[in-house]
Formats: sequence, C-alpha cells, structure tokens
Amino acid sequence: MITLSVDAMGGDIGLAVTVPAAVSFLAKEPNVRLMMVGDETLLRDALQATSAPMQRIEIVHASEVVGMDEAPQHALKHKKQSSMRLAIEQVKSGNAQAAVSAGNTGALMATARFVLKTLPHVDRPAIAKFLPAQDGKVTLMLDLGANVDCTAEQLVQFAVLGSELVAALYPDKKTPRVGLLNIGTEDIKGTEVVKQTFGLLRESSLHFVGNVESNAIFGGEVDVVVADGFVGNVVLKTIEGAVKFMGSAIKEEFNRNVFTKMGALGALPALNGFKKRLDPRRFNGAIFLGLRGVVIKSHGGTDAVGFEYALAEAYHEAQADSLAKIEQGVSAALLALEEKRLIGQTGSLH
Amino acid sequence: MITLSVDAMGGDIGLAVTVPAAVSFLAKEPNVRLMMVGDETLLRDALQATSAPMQRIEIVHASEVVGMDEAPQHALKHKKQSSMRLAIEQVKSGNAQAAVSAGNTGALMATARFVLKTLPHVDRPAIAKFLPAQDGKVTLMLDLGANVDCTAEQLVQFAVLGSELVAALYPDKKTPRVGLLNIGTEDIKGTEVVKQTFGLLRESSLHFVGNVESNAIFGGEVDVVVADGFVGNVVLKTIEGAVKFMGSAIKEEFNRNVFTKMGALGALPALNGFKKRLDPRRFNGAIFLGLRGVVIKSHGGTDAVGFEYALAEAYHEAQADSLAKIEQGVSAALLALEEKRLIGQTGSLH
Repeated sequence: MITLSVDAMGGDIGLAVTVPAAVSFLAKEPNVRLMMVGDETLLRDALQATSAPMQRIEIVHASEVVGMDEAPQHALKHKKQSSMRLAIEQVKSGNAQAAVSAGNTGALMATARFVLKTLPHVDRPAIAKFLPAQDGKVTLMLDLGANVDCTAEQLVQFAVLGSELVAALYPDKKTPRVGLLNIGTEDIKGTEVVKQTFGLLRESSLHFVGNVESNAIFGGEVDVVVADGFVGNVVLKTIEGAVKFMGSAIKEEFNRNVFTKMGALGALPALNGFKKRLDPRRFNGAIFLGLRGVVIKSHGGTDAVGFEYALAEAYHEAQADSLAKIEQGVSAALLALEEKRLIGQTGSLH
Repeated sequence: MITLSVDAMGGDIGLAVTVPAAVSFLAKEPNVRLMMVGDETLLRDALQATSAPMQRIEIVHASEVVGMDEAPQHALKHKKQSSMRLAIEQVKSGNAQAAVSAGNTGALMATARFVLKTLPHVDRPAIAKFLPAQDGKVTLMLDLGANVDCTAEQLVQFAVLGSELVAALYPDKKTPRVGLLNIGTEDIKGTEVVKQTFGLLRESSLHFVGNVESNAIFGGEVDVVVADGFVGNVVLKTIEGAVKFMGSAIKEEFNRNVFTKMGALGALPALNGFKKRLDPRRFNGAIFLGLRGVVIKSHGGTDAVGFEYALAEAYHEAQADSLAKIEQGVSAALLALEEKRLIGQTGSLH
C-alpha cells in the first residue's frame, strides 16, 4: 500500500480540481491511500458529494493556504499550518511516500527544501520533467527553473540526479544517456559554464553522450537533458508556446472555408488523436529532484485530468522506491567524481 | 535599382541552389541586379542553362570556397579570394547594397565583422531573425547565437539594434515594442545579467514593455525579443524541433488506419495550408545586425525556394535603406542612454 499526501487547497482552483482528481485516481489504483490536506470542513463536504472510497482517504486539517502569488519567504515564515507545508511534513514524518501540490512553485520549493533538506552532496534541488519525444518515448529535462545562475558543479549534480531518477523509474534504462544542452554538438561550443560542465561530465561515471541541441529532446536519442534553470525554463515555455501556436494555426486552416470545414469532419479522429498526444495535461507533474523526499508539482492552472497525471507521477516514483535508489546512486557518482578530480588536481601539480 | 551580391558557392549544395533561386528571384523583381560571386566557369555554365536575364547579372570570379566546417579564423586568414569574402567586399565597396550567403555561419560572421566593421557604439554584431507569430504577424528575435556570454550593455545594444531594424523595415511600427526574454514577467526574475539589462532598458528611450516569456514570441504582443546568443539559439532550435515533432505526429495520426487515411484526403487543403504556413523556408534569412553593411545568412541546407526568401529579405532591407536608418537611430539611442547613466552616476555621488 502506497500513501500519497495531497495539498488539496493548492492551485488556481483548489478543491474543485484536487478532489475529483483524487476520487478518479483512487478508483483506478486500488493500492493507494491518500492523505488529503486542507480545510477539514470544506474537504469533508467536497468528498461527501462523491463516490470516494473513504476508507482509503485520510483528511488532515490545515488552517492556512499559501497564496499563488505569495512570496516564498513569507509562506515559509508565516504559513506553518498551510496545506502545502503539512502535506510535505507527511513525507518528512514517513506517513506518506510522496507529496503532490499545485500550489505556488517558489513557495513549494522553499518549503520542501526547508522541511525535507537536500540529499548528501547535492547543493540545490532541481525541477525535472518528462517531456514527450518521438515514438511515444520520453526525455527527462532539468533544471526547469529552480536555479537560474548555476555553477558547472551544480549542473553535474543535476545530471547525476536525472540519470539516477530515470534508472530508478525505468528498469530497461540502467545507464541512461545524458546530454548537455548546448547550441552545437562540438566540444568547444557554449558559455564558459557549459564548457566547464562538459569537461566534468566527461570525467564522470555517467553515460554522457556529449552536447545536444534542443531538438534532441524530441528525438528520443537521449534520456536526460541537462541545462541551467533559466535555459530549461525557456525551453519548456517555448515548447508550450509552439504547441499552442501550431494548434491554433491548424484550427484556423480548417476554419478557412466551407470545404476545409467539411474536410475537418472526416479528419476528426486523426485530429483528436493528435490533440490527445500533445495534451499538456498528460505531461503534468514536475519532479523536485535532490530532496530527501518525493515532491511533485502540478501545474497551478490544470484541471482534474491534469492533476490526476501528477498523482500518477507521484505514485510511479513511490512504487519504484526511486528516492532510496537515487540517494545511493547520487552519493556514489558524486563521490567518485570528487575523488577523480582530487587525483587529477594532485597529478597536475607534479 | 538595387544590387545584391550573392555568395553563389555557399551552402551545403552551392550553385544548384543559389542559381535557380537567383533566376526565379530576378524574374519576380525587375528592379534588382545580382552580383553572382563564385567560380566563373561553373557559374557561366549553370546560368547558361537557365532563362536568366543576363543583363541584370554580373559574374564576379572567386577562386576559393569556404568549407562548411572550416574554422572562422582559418577562412579569414587563408581564404581571401573566397566567394564569401568577395561577396561581402562588394558591400564594403558600395557595389552592392546587401550580401547573401548560405555559407558557414561562424566564418561568415568573422569575415563580415572584419571586412565591414561594427557600427559606432556597437561592441559586437548579433544574429536576428523574424519568426512567425499569430495572425500572420512576425516577431524579431536576437541574438540567435553570435554571442554566448553577453554583458547587460551588449544586450541593450541588441535591443536598440532590433528596435531600429523593425522601425526601418515597417513604416507602421515607428516605436517597436521591445521585450526582454525571461522566465517570468515580474521585475525580479532572471539571471544577474538579465536583471541588470532590465534596469538599463527601463532607462532607455526604447518602447520597453518589460520581461516576456518565450511564448510571447508567438503571441505577437511584442515586436522585438532580446536574449543572449545561447538562449536565443536554444529557443530557435526548440521551435524548429517542436514544429518538426508536431509535423511527424500529425502525419502518424493520419496514417494510423484506413479511416484516418481517408480523412486525410478531405483534409488535404487545410493540411497543406498548415504546412505552408509553418514552412521554415519562408522564414529563411537571418540578419547580421550591427555591421556597417547588410549581410543576410541563409540556412546552409535550404533549397532554392528557401534561398530565394533570403534574397527577398536582403532586398527588403536594401530597399528600406535600413542600414542608414539603423546607424542614425542606434547612435542616438545609445548616446542618450550613456548620458543618462553618467548623470545618474554623478547624481548618486551627491
């Protein structure tokens, strides 16, 4: 039995999204218990109106809610009874194996770092996400915005974290292929930090395939793509923007005249398949990676379908016992790299 | 009469692309002369087989060709008789109003900088491109890869250059809206350099609308989007990757079974409209901005249709006399900003 804690009040809409998602998720997954964290009265009312299996739901009362625009430091100091904070504390105390929230990203990251702390040898957690690639494959990309100014050492930590996560979640990917996001595949490309990172990754025990350009994300030739949080976030939003732009372009073309409109009728099954395949809700659920606990961030504006995908991501990680595997792997990889570099430095003194 | 110089040997294929593109372009534009720069014998043979109006074509012999993988410094030192170099020199000497090349980007930029020099007050040239936005609009984005590590002052120069280019090319956009690419619209977002740039742009005489996220490129809410060359190049390649990925996804959906295949027949006019709208060849022609001369870079792998769009971009700039306007505007804007900052610094001493 896996237990997930849910920040039931988080997100732009809160209960009206989290409760239906939880009910639908429980109906599909018989081996899950949910701790719904939020206003007890409101939660009880919302759940009562549903067919939820109450024996697999525990309501944890939280008297406060973190606002979607609230400053992370404010939330950390003044919202100690928030649904977000208490949901994360369930993971800290071991009551739950993963927490899910659609709340304010900055506050969620600050709270998760404060409550759970980072893994040994990891300076800062990163935000990671599986993105759709060709032939139904997925590519893990990180960091997606937690760290804008990164050192080469931090980028290497992200690479190790990403590699360990993929290995933990996918038994057929024991040595994930890691690529460094760059503006060309040649060794000499990129900013100073990216060039340093390239050198470090080449010395690491990872399956480092070298520099990759952003189209590699879609190609499925790599399992992990590493970038700093500024570049990663820009890539993510560019993909979202491009998908939306192309979606409206195709709509406009089918609405052009009576013939194209008739054509759209026959094309509906394919168009719906296309729409479904790129539905951003299916890729909802960003992973806070590098913490001593599993925290999944749902998009704040998603609906119940999207939030259910975030719950599924949390379940997948908890089931695979990803955290224990990552902790072990990260320690080994980062220690080995550190040793190699120390030897290298000593060597160069002679 | 406008004269363009064409590096006829540049690109993955060279003459087989540049010659048909030139012939087709001359047929459409009666007020253009082309200087075709390359191997005289090969050029004459290639042109003879066409219906080209020879009275509007001048062949300029060049005995060398810059390789697509040749190091920029090597090309600069050892290929002084290359088609690329001689094409740019036609602009320097005033024989042509703009040069077009599908050659190696690094070598083209190094050669263009060396031969033409930068505009006053401009440290380094940038690569800019018009990208497709909603409702047939376009957004100019820069830098697309010429400068990976940028200072705030350089980013401001790019903003000024981009704004002046749009104002010069589009009479209805006298004060182009300039956005700074960031990972959120709040003032406090971004890397240290981006935050500094934000401060400088706010003091500038530009119509600065603030931080924009990358989806703003498609929205048409801004006319110019500024980023460093690393981020800009990543955005460009992410768009290219996303468009290709979605194109193959839609193909796969229509090939799924006999019903979807039948549906595709009726949908063909709309699908072709969609394909045409996002055809990357229509957006071929990157602009080297900040030089004392107009240089347009065509994609190295494009076909004759794509190369013709690059010729059209060069023609558009030459016709609008964009260079003279940009030179004047850039001087005024950068001097005004410099003065303001000096006053600000003096003021803060009291």
